[in-house]
Amino acid sequence: MRNFSQNHEWLSINTATVRKSRGVDLPLPHIIEACVERGIGAISPWRDQVVAAGLSVISKMVKSHGLKLSGYCRGGMFPAADAAGIQASDLDNRKAVDEACELSAQCLVLVVGGLPGALAGQAAHKNIELSRHQVHDGIAKLLEYAKSCGMPLAIEPLHPMYAADRSCVNTLEQALDICDALDPSKTGALGVAVDVYHVWWDPKLESQIVRTGKNRLLAFHVCDWLTPTTDLLNDRGMMGDGVIDIPKIRGWVEAQGFNGYSEVEIFSAAHWWQKDHAEVLDTCIARHQQSV
Amino acid sequence: MRNFSQNHEWLSINTATVRKSRGVDLPLPHIIEACVERGIGAISPWRDQVVAAGLSVISKMVKSHGLKLSGYCRGGMFPAADAAGIQASDLDNRKAVDEACELSAQCLVLVVGGLPGALAGQAAHKNIELSRHQVHDGIAKLLEYAKSCGMPLAIEPLHPMYAADRSCVNTLEQALDICDALDPSKTGALGVAVDVYHVWWDPKLESQIVRTGKNRLLAFHVCDWLTPTTDLLNDRGMMGDGVIDIPKIRGWVEAQGFNGYSEVEIFSAAHWWQKDHAEVLDTCIARHQQSV
Repeated sequence: MRNFSQNHEWLSINTATVRKSRGVDLPLPHIIEACVERGIGAISPWRDQVVAAGLSVISKMVKSHGLKLSGYCRGGMFPAADAAGIQASDLDNRKAVDEACELSAQCLVLVVGGLPGALAGQAAHKNIELSRHQVHDGIAKLLEYAKSCGMPLAIEPLHPMYAADRSCVNTLEQALDICDALDPSKTGALGVAVDVYHVWWDPKLESQIVRTGKNRLLAFHVCDWLTPTTDLLNDRGMMGDGVIDIPKIRGWVEAQGFNGYSEVEIFSAAHWWQKDHAEVLDTCIARHQQSV
Repeated sequence: MRNFSQNHEWLSINTATVRKSRGVDLPLPHIIEACVERGIGAISPWRDQVVAAGLSVISKMVKSHGLKLSGYCRGGMFPAADAAGIQASDLDNRKAVDEACELSAQCLVLVVGGLPGALAGQAAHKNIELSRHQVHDGIAKLLEYAKSCGMPLAIEPLHPMYAADRSCVNTLEQALDICDALDPSKTGALGVAVDVYHVWWDPKLESQIVRTGKNRLLAFHVCDWLTPTTDLLNDRGMMGDGVIDIPKIRGWVEAQGFNGYSEVEIFSAAHWWQKDHAEVLDTCIARHQQSV
């Protein structure tokens, strides 16, 4: 297992972590500059932040600073209530692949979607099996395109509390079943993003990480689970402030040969997004060394 | 599958559902009278409510009204930070078995506990495997006692969002692994409580219900998953108001031969606990007929 205690060579900042500074939206170019100033060598930006700043602007900044992208957030949201919705999703996902390629991201992260309409508070139906079939089909189609571009797709199983509105892929086992079906020879074109927040509770986590293997371990995300957790989406904790044994899980991942970035992804409306982003980034560096 | 649309013969009210009426604590004797008035034939009371009213008082009421107990809530909370804590848990769980026997409950429901201290906001450690071992050992000890009393123990897998503070048994598969280890001959002395709120998201739910089989299906709980869900504990929905396909899951359970009560268990601080309990119970009856 790599020693992270002396530097932050393997730290990546998911830019949602500093989406806001003192409660105010922080533009992606500012985030990038703040990362570069601190010697942070990798980021994982969100599409909405890239669009707001302009893809070509961000692409130039990334290249001029020699930044790596541990991932690009995000494709997915495959299920839809009708054929037009499916088609729109397919098109948008191809666009996400193109953007990921332009930014030389190591993978496109897929948050696959749940019941159509649920995120807006009104699910079109209750058939989660149907959504899971649509996810399977959507990834199958996108994978053909992504392979032609050389962009790996990383399915991110999301915590079961997001099954209705964000992702009906909720365990690593389930994500790997999709990988087995669509990429049985484990080429690396399709794999998973392991986020400790989503999977730490899983009694089968270690065995499924072994099953994943190096070729399919495309991304590793960290934050922490707070007790109490006061919001289902935006109350993630800084590494070390919660109950997840992050080094244990990193050990399992690295035992499979994973040697990539540890990407910090914290959504924290009431706490970290209210602080100055400089303090947040400095804390990420310190905790990366102490608690990851 | 049984037809529930014409009556509420198989409705049970978990008394937490009407723990408060118009925001004020409702004593268990009042809850029982309100259920009896409506021809509700079964309840599942919580220990704190029983203690507040007095066990003998409740026992007499239950018997005089001919009420059934679809379960007794609850034993468990096995993990502890030290030997004294384990011993206290063991003693308290035996007491819960005794109370369940006095009330002729069909089973004692076990919410097994998570990381010691986490419920109070300060976990003693981050070793969820240790907690899982303590749960295994605690159930093993309690099972010997419960068998001697003839009281079935129902492990209730809780949603993974409660893994830290309430239950480190988070899937039906995991609960059944414990059953296989401790009661391999499937005597019915140890089984599970299937609550749709906790398990609806699970891609392996149907296959694990098949694995459960009739002897281990000791209780079936219903409510609904709301989108959005605004609180991790106390924002459960009334059946029909959320995204869970409850009849589908009931069909799976009944296909295994389950023919017991459908127990309504709703924690709803901001909505149902603010209404008059009469309205809540009438709604439970209506939704039991329409949406379960």
